[in-house]
Amino acid sequence: METKELLLMIPGPTNVPPRIMKAMFKPMINHRDEEFRALYKNILENLRYAFQTKNDVFPLTCSGTGGVEFAIGNLISRGDKVIVPVNGLFSERLKEEIIRFGGVPIEIRSEWGSACSVEDVKTVLENEKDVKAIALVYNETSTGTTLRSLPEIGKLAKKYDVLLIVDAISVLLGDYLPVDEWGVDVCIAGSQKCFACPPGLAMVSVSEKAYEVAEKNRFRPFYHDLLAWREFKGRLETPFTPVLPLYYALDEALKVLKEEGLENRVQRHRVCAQAFYMAFEEMGLDTVAHGDLRSNTVIVPWLPTNVDDRRFRENLKKKYGVVVAGGGGKLKGKTFRIGSMGTVSKSEVLRTIRGILGSLTDTGYNLDIKPDEIESKVEKVFSGFKFYQFY
Amino acid sequence: METKELLLMIPGPTNVPPRIMKAMFKPMINHRDEEFRALYKNILENLRYAFQTKNDVFPLTCSGTGGVEFAIGNLISRGDKVIVPVNGLFSERLKEEIIRFGGVPIEIRSEWGSACSVEDVKTVLENEKDVKAIALVYNETSTGTTLRSLPEIGKLAKKYDVLLIVDAISVLLGDYLPVDEWGVDVCIAGSQKCFACPPGLAMVSVSEKAYEVAEKNRFRPFYHDLLAWREFKGRLETPFTPVLPLYYALDEALKVLKEEGLENRVQRHRVCAQAFYMAFEEMGLDTVAHGDLRSNTVIVPWLPTNVDDRRFRENLKKKYGVVVAGGGGKLKGKTFRIGSMGTVSKSEVLRTIRGILGSLTDTGYNLDIKPDEIESKVEKVFSGFKFYQFY
Repeated sequence: METKELLLMIPGPTNVPPRIMKAMFKPMINHRDEEFRALYKNILENLRYAFQTKNDVFPLTCSGTGGVEFAIGNLISRGDKVIVPVNGLFSERLKEEIIRFGGVPIEIRSEWGSACSVEDVKTVLENEKDVKAIALVYNETSTGTTLRSLPEIGKLAKKYDVLLIVDAISVLLGDYLPVDEWGVDVCIAGSQKCFACPPGLAMVSVSEKAYEVAEKNRFRPFYHDLLAWREFKGRLETPFTPVLPLYYALDEALKVLKEEGLENRVQRHRVCAQAFYMAFEEMGLDTVAHGDLRSNTVIVPWLPTNVDDRRFRENLKKKYGVVVAGGGGKLKGKTFRIGSMGTVSKSEVLRTIRGILGSLTDTGYNLDIKPDEIESKVEKVFSGFKFYQFY
Repeated sequence: METKELLLMIPGPTNVPPRIMKAMFKPMINHRDEEFRALYKNILENLRYAFQTKNDVFPLTCSGTGGVEFAIGNLISRGDKVIVPVNGLFSERLKEEIIRFGGVPIEIRSEWGSACSVEDVKTVLENEKDVKAIALVYNETSTGTTLRSLPEIGKLAKKYDVLLIVDAISVLLGDYLPVDEWGVDVCIAGSQKCFACPPGLAMVSVSEKAYEVAEKNRFRPFYHDLLAWREFKGRLETPFTPVLPLYYALDEALKVLKEEGLENRVQRHRVCAQAFYMAFEEMGLDTVAHGDLRSNTVIVPWLPTNVDDRRFRENLKKKYGVVVAGGGGKLKGKTFRIGSMGTVSKSEVLRTIRGILGSLTDTGYNLDIKPDEIESKVEKVFSGFKFYQFY
């Protein structure tokens, strides 16, 4: 590494372990040649493992939002009704994406930090005719809220024969999400989140039902044409030149995932999140989401009212070497966001908590509890947990 | 490099010099933070130099075709008439892209290897009402043909007040293309061509006129929303998470470009192409394009009729370590394609020619001239030319 590395604890990109960085450092190859086909074959197989699906999963050269555009652009045509639970910035963005393609969003609004229930969705499905799809953000990165009714919504989608499109960008591998078991037609993930890769790829799974819908849409995007991806898959090629360094990195990241094991990866994220939630409780900082809705990957505490967001985060970065993200939208200045994902483990969690404790104290917050006490409680959360060695 | 490096002489990706590869090996950063802003500022400034423009040039996370989609998706609405010269696979693709967004292409067809004249375009502009844009592929990668009437078409576009959209993916920096001087509203380039970067970025320049058209289009793409790119540029950020390793690589590649100088880079590509054309003439192999229309970056010779394409290219790769591309579309099996771009210099050209001579002979072609004679003639083409040292 050329510059002193900060601990990135934002909701993507994450720090990337050297093993995955080094994988990028391979010569360019012809993407219409056998070397590429071997690489692509591995990636396609291992992505199925990551998504727990028998469906196709494509690694698209774009950001996570590009992956959402791929889903909506292929599946939603002008006039199509789409149910969208909205409870934060990214679900607002999903709604906007639907509108851009001429879809008609039927919003189910919840408070930020809250999430809709399966009954809310059922009511809409019973009252509205010709709903084409349910599109939802599984893990709201702006509020750290996970839409826990997803498996039940999956059953409804099947019963009412509507498509289920799930933005799982900031959570796949960081929480349980068995795509086939839960009946998710299209699931979108991002390379720079729990995969611990650099940004540049959206991975999208596609069910047979989704293919059938796309076949009827003559205004599919061209760069993001789902049917072209299916066609080229037959010869183990991509329709257009892929971002090769990221394919190399993803290939390595998927090997790492299989070594660690999917269950272990999810459990690691869960334990780290628990440690954070416990620490914030001890510090007297409430989080935007509560109870079961709290995310495994994005932790969003409220800032003490007397602490200035900008000063707190700048000090945290400069003095403690830890980078967290600011609040988004109407939570700007009132919250901060921790991305606890990728290779996150006990040492990163402790370093982050130590830094936050320090920076909060530096910027005017009075703690009722001693830092050492918090740390020893946090240590206990990890007791007995075996961490995979990334480094 | 981990594996033995082949000499990639395909029309992208090119071999990437270690200096640019190494640039990717930097820690991840927060794309909403000051480190990113400094990087992005440099890239934006230096892209203006590469495009010879005062307009904005955006580095998009997608392939070249994604850059074309960005242009068409923002500027072409349903029912818009677009003049499209079609003379190969990539201009067919451009036409298809226009259709996907509901545009109405007015084709000007030319033989493959040929190109339309400025009079052809003028005739359409005089006979058709309400033409919205001219969209063209400047360098047809399937045939190795450059549309030399572009500067004159630029004048027409201005006179008739229509947008000029130019796909220069496989040629920018490899041939002269002063965006502002020639009145190009939107110019699209790709990272994996004459920039000598890995694939993963499309760079797109945008004129004021293009912004005005996009402002009237309410069905702009979301991921590829031109107006979002303009808005976020104000705070030196991108709308969505960019492919950071490629941004690092592009930043370095642009520094390399400035060191070499734009004029020198174009001239280097020109000299290398001349050497190839001369060598093929000596070998008795005709090219698909002729005279002035011949490309500086993609050379497409006809295969001798008794040589099998697959055997020829496999042998060239395995025995001589040189990778060239096969013919595309209706030229498949009848031609092969050389990408002479990126860091290409005398040694790459000579190694490629030597390999081709060898592999043609191995697979049944009888040369009338001795390889040494061709090589010494090729050497002369380079006489006195000073190459920038990439390695």
